[in-house]
Amino acid sequence: MPALRSWFTIPRGSHFSLANIPFGIVSTATSNSPRVAVAIGDHALDLEAFAANNGFSALSAIQPHQAVFSEPSLNSFAALGRPMHAVVRKYIQSVFAEDTPYPDVLKNNAALQKQALFPLKDVQKHLPFKIGDYTDFFVGMNHAYNCGVMFRGAANALNPNYKYLPVGYHGRASSIVPSGTPIRRPHGQFLPNPAADEKVPVYAHIKKLDYELELGAFVCKPNKMGEPVPIGQAEDNLFGLVMLNDWSARDVQSWEYVPLGPFNAKNFGSSISTWVVLMDALEPFKVKGIENDKEVLPYLKEKDDKTVYDIQLKVDLKTNSGSTTTVANSNGRHLLWSFPQCLAHHTSTGCNLQTGDLLGSGTISGTAAGEYGCLLEGTEGGKKPFKVGDEERTFLQDGDEVTFTGVCGTDEEALVGFGQVTGRIEPALNLGY
Amino acid sequence: MPALRSWFTIPRGSHFSLANIPFGIVSTATSNSPRVAVAIGDHALDLEAFAANNGFSALSAIQPHQAVFSEPSLNSFAALGRPMHAVVRKYIQSVFAEDTPYPDVLKNNAALQKQALFPLKDVQKHLPFKIGDYTDFFVGMNHAYNCGVMFRGAANALNPNYKYLPVGYHGRASSIVPSGTPIRRPHGQFLPNPAADEKVPVYAHIKKLDYELELGAFVCKPNKMGEPVPIGQAEDNLFGLVMLNDWSARDVQSWEYVPLGPFNAKNFGSSISTWVVLMDALEPFKVKGIENDKEVLPYLKEKDDKTVYDIQLKVDLKTNSGSTTTVANSNGRHLLWSFPQCLAHHTSTGCNLQTGDLLGSGTISGTAAGEYGCLLEGTEGGKKPFKVGDEERTFLQDGDEVTFTGVCGTDEEALVGFGQVTGRIEPALNLGY
Repeated sequence: MPALRSWFTIPRGSHFSLANIPFGIVSTATSNSPRVAVAIGDHALDLEAFAANNGFSALSAIQPHQAVFSEPSLNSFAALGRPMHAVVRKYIQSVFAEDTPYPDVLKNNAALQKQALFPLKDVQKHLPFKIGDYTDFFVGMNHAYNCGVMFRGAANALNPNYKYLPVGYHGRASSIVPSGTPIRRPHGQFLPNPAADEKVPVYAHIKKLDYELELGAFVCKPNKMGEPVPIGQAEDNLFGLVMLNDWSARDVQSWEYVPLGPFNAKNFGSSISTWVVLMDALEPFKVKGIENDKEVLPYLKEKDDKTVYDIQLKVDLKTNSGSTTTVANSNGRHLLWSFPQCLAHHTSTGCNLQTGDLLGSGTISGTAAGEYGCLLEGTEGGKKPFKVGDEERTFLQDGDEVTFTGVCGTDEEALVGFGQVTGRIEPALNLGY
Repeated sequence: MPALRSWFTIPRGSHFSLANIPFGIVSTATSNSPRVAVAIGDHALDLEAFAANNGFSALSAIQPHQAVFSEPSLNSFAALGRPMHAVVRKYIQSVFAEDTPYPDVLKNNAALQKQALFPLKDVQKHLPFKIGDYTDFFVGMNHAYNCGVMFRGAANALNPNYKYLPVGYHGRASSIVPSGTPIRRPHGQFLPNPAADEKVPVYAHIKKLDYELELGAFVCKPNKMGEPVPIGQAEDNLFGLVMLNDWSARDVQSWEYVPLGPFNAKNFGSSISTWVVLMDALEPFKVKGIENDKEVLPYLKEKDDKTVYDIQLKVDLKTNSGSTTTVANSNGRHLLWSFPQCLAHHTSTGCNLQTGDLLGSGTISGTAAGEYGCLLEGTEGGKKPFKVGDEERTFLQDGDEVTFTGVCGTDEEALVGFGQVTGRIEPALNLGY
């Protein structure tokens, strides 16, 4: 498909081509109320201002609902359902198309352009959703395998349940923050010497601070408590995807996690990218995930075999000295289970998901060196340091800035990208104890 | 301390004596907007109506904040902080006292009595808080030990971390429901024959449905992300306690829980009692918890050694045939860690708790037969059935109704009770697959 051309300047290589139209929440110097916007090229289109100035005059379907664009989260817009997301995205594409059928809406309307189009560098991006519950899955099989080898050896790397269900756990919603929010090195309880016979922990600032390269999916359509979502309907219950950095304290994790799983090792902060890429925008990039050699139960079996996305993922590490090193490349295809499968499984007991709930994929690693989605894998638990410019790292140091980039496609005029999710490590507090 | 006497009829043995004054959210036939109330004897005092009719005329501190009583959750009232909860409770006690200094407020005000006092049987009780995140701890050591013996043998029953930190995990907030809400038997993925060599699961309605007898604590004061709450301040960040039934699907749990902990086994529903007993009301019932023979780290060390509560807990099981059997008696003292310790640990990495977050204790079992807080322990994993009237049970059957009762004190005129949390098992849906 040739790239959609626009009358508006969209720089080559922009993640936010006309093929994308991701949604987010922004505020500006002129109006500090967070509201709904889409990203287009180097700009944000403020949908509150757009709606207020008859921008949607040619889309009657959305008109009774335009108040959703003035809200400080995408929850109400998302709750309108996937067919509505589709028509709004298509309409915005048509408004920006070179041969737009609605030239008076924006193309020939300098006043509205001035009122509703803001350079991205001038807008503040906020958390896109009010997140009720956050669930983190563990369906990046290469990551699960690599960690399993470290902890249990190759023969038992994957637990018996791994290929039968999307393993997941409930995460912490309150500490999910938008890209750019600094992450303070946490204190935590851990064993200063895990190899010692006597297991006596300390409470101190943690040493093994790690990132985790993940994708996140936002729920748009809720399901009632007690009513599982059939696998065939699960994708339509999803709004779109973001990139997710599930910061992890490995020293805390290895001490606390038996028998109930990760807790404080993960709850001090998780960062997400701020532009949510709609399921429809990702549709052309569907690919097969990791093949499952077990018989998948009917409630998890998808009709199509292309269920995950070819998203090129990259991890950059910038140190205090200013050098930036790409420490990993990975891809959204390295998943054993798709988000619709995760959602179907999550609701299979009747658990009610709500609009704005976030599902994380778990760490997405490839199979080769340089494709690890976290430092735990890349450094074999901290045993093998790696080079970052002139420096060495095993885990993150204060001042390190971690940036994930994710993008679909190769046509520089039609990329569907996520932008970035970034976070810089601040030194631990001095707690005085 | 002699019981406070009231001009209002409070039946002997009421959980809601003048010494209690628990808070909740109610609606009535005459007004279906959920709003704040307190329970007193067999009645609810509607604080919206009370406030609107100058009920708080002699308490100037609350006057600028009276709108909180019209809200559909306790969040805003709770956010006012523990000193405010204390003065409001004391004021209501004084309004109801036999020798009230404010006789014109309610005692001699038949009109307001009619407008604001409703028989409890006529009010609908709602979820008391809008719950952001729910965390379930595992600090009922007898339960942890008993389960550990079943899974790992007596020598390794408790993991090495158990006495150093309050083990916990993130739970599911969306499926927390008020007492009385029916619980549908869930479907789930589990091994039909766990003893078989080949581990091939099915998706079917679960067989091993269990309850868990817990206490829950609601957070009132939030802490900022990145800033741990010192142990000395932790209790003041709590609003009060409820009883909690953490319904559990044991067949799902044993299959899914490695390596990330319980997930679908727990997220289909958790029930809580609807009247929240304030920390101040519980203060006279503080007792020592289970002794910890390890050196507790300073960030978890409390000044006082009385940190948990002497709450008499009871589990009743009513079957379809109508017979009711008390299947367990336990007590709130059977905890290794207090709620303030749980809160301090939870925030020790800087995790931000918010007003309305719920912390569960984990199952509270005594040490003897008849004191088990769940069926898994009492039946040794389903191996030893027990009698309920003329019937036998290992796990719950459709139509079974489980009721927890919790109360502090022995003076029938000064009980501080929680009322009950109850839930009846509905048959599984026919999913057609």
